[in-house]
Amino acid sequence: MLWNPDDLKSFLDRHTKDENAKIVVITSGGTAVPLEKNCVRYIENFSNGTRGAISAEKFLENGYLVIFFHRANSLQPYSHRFPDLFNHLKPAGENKFTVSDYPHLGEMIERKHKYADRILLLPFNSFDDYKNDLEYICHACAGYKKRLCVYLAAAVSDFYIDAERLPEHKIQSADGGLNLKLTIAPKVLRRIVKDFVPEAFVVSFKLETDPSVLVEKSKKAIKEYGHQIVIANMLKTRKRRVTFIRANEDPFPIDLDSPEFAEKADVEIEELIIERLKKLHSNYCHV
Amino acid sequence: MLWNPDDLKSFLDRHTKDENAKIVVITSGGTAVPLEKNCVRYIENFSNGTRGAISAEKFLENGYLVIFFHRANSLQPYSHRFPDLFNHLKPAGENKFTVSDYPHLGEMIERKHKYADRILLLPFNSFDDYKNDLEYICHACAGYKKRLCVYLAAAVSDFYIDAERLPEHKIQSADGGLNLKLTIAPKVLRRIVKDFVPEAFVVSFKLETDPSVLVEKSKKAIKEYGHQIVIANMLKTRKRRVTFIRANEDPFPIDLDSPEFAEKADVEIEELIIERLKKLHSNYCHV
Repeated sequence: MLWNPDDLKSFLDRHTKDENAKIVVITSGGTAVPLEKNCVRYIENFSNGTRGAISAEKFLENGYLVIFFHRANSLQPYSHRFPDLFNHLKPAGENKFTVSDYPHLGEMIERKHKYADRILLLPFNSFDDYKNDLEYICHACAGYKKRLCVYLAAAVSDFYIDAERLPEHKIQSADGGLNLKLTIAPKVLRRIVKDFVPEAFVVSFKLETDPSVLVEKSKKAIKEYGHQIVIANMLKTRKRRVTFIRANEDPFPIDLDSPEFAEKADVEIEELIIERLKKLHSNYCHV
Repeated sequence: MLWNPDDLKSFLDRHTKDENAKIVVITSGGTAVPLEKNCVRYIENFSNGTRGAISAEKFLENGYLVIFFHRANSLQPYSHRFPDLFNHLKPAGENKFTVSDYPHLGEMIERKHKYADRILLLPFNSFDDYKNDLEYICHACAGYKKRLCVYLAAAVSDFYIDAERLPEHKIQSADGGLNLKLTIAPKVLRRIVKDFVPEAFVVSFKLETDPSVLVEKSKKAIKEYGHQIVIANMLKTRKRRVTFIRANEDPFPIDLDSPEFAEKADVEIEELIIERLKKLHSNYCHV
């Protein structure tokens, strides 16, 4: 665990008064699976954490408390909009700086301060930490019951190597090649839904590169884990198109390239995702 | 290739006048080995690129022209000293900002501008790009002959998967596990030294986690590839201690925890590495 459990406790304690508050646990960024105990090499899942970071902003702006459980050094709400900030600064005397090309910087800094009390940032690196910490966080939030949303945007490894089978030191390359035996990683989603927060509103993502398996695999996940929503997306079009998959409902696409959004060039797909989730979550709470 | 070869050409053309100029090609950050063609997963070598980024500054400040060949989004000279800059800024009216806790920010921005014309930043992501681009860059710089230093600070994968054996789509996890067959990656260092820039002053790094193999493996590398220097270091102490390994010379350690440096709390080990390399490179040019 890379963070102090007291921080989580005091965040939750601070916000207990509002009995109608909704809270979301967002996972963001990719997990790392170490190939050695003293880790030089690891298997990475691709994710900068853009979706998670933007989603956190939208949840905040829609009234949610946010626990942002993210890969250390992945993108964070608001700041991710200003990469390479150092190269945009110009000294302007007396410890003052001007900024070129980032007209919304001041506004976003203010927004960050506005919501600072309503978001808690907790980092992870390895798959093991991801799994254990997420269970811990969900358990700690279980009192929110149906008002808890778990929004699993992180890219989590499907495979890993058991800790006891990891070599102690850097793998040596002398012997002509390397055979890695990976086993299927335990399904975090299953335990979250069945054991930890069975009442929560759980949203998972399914990312594929082969369109022919996407919807089918998403439906299978809903059936298997029994959670509320899979948001299905393709690696190459994930910023323009997603499809909501729910049990007993037709797939519901959001497509920024459809005529509906022709006038809205600036809209981010996460804004539409969270607007829709907010409604569905609200309905879910009142059933 | 993630960059335009014309940028390299015009950088080199711009600096041809100085017949005594030394140039260094620095590699920095880790390589990625994709496990799929449409890449969701890959094997990563650990490296933020701190050593490469600081080394680039020190080479610049020691009069070198610098080609900084780095993993995209890894740390860069000067800016790496100010992580999380967004959270240090405060709006101060009229597109001005003040900065907390970063007293050297203005100075480093000025230093960046001072050397901007003498450094070229070229990015890579995959092992394949690393290998091919580095050969291209070395070839383009070959005219510097002995005045070319190649400083291989990147963490390069020892293993990879041949492109023709990569699966087209994201590996599916249905079948109970995953066997990855990795082959030893072609030794970029060998080709650099033997084929591309046999006259250059070539410095490689050897990072290990097991101290018992470090010096022996470094000596073996010198013998095998015939280059000038291996800088040997351990993963855990790499910011405090390195050892220069050369053919027919005793190992030469630099240890920031030795009494010699007791008074210099702020010194960065890269400053001492580059000071020493500058001398050795100068001797090498005059042999």
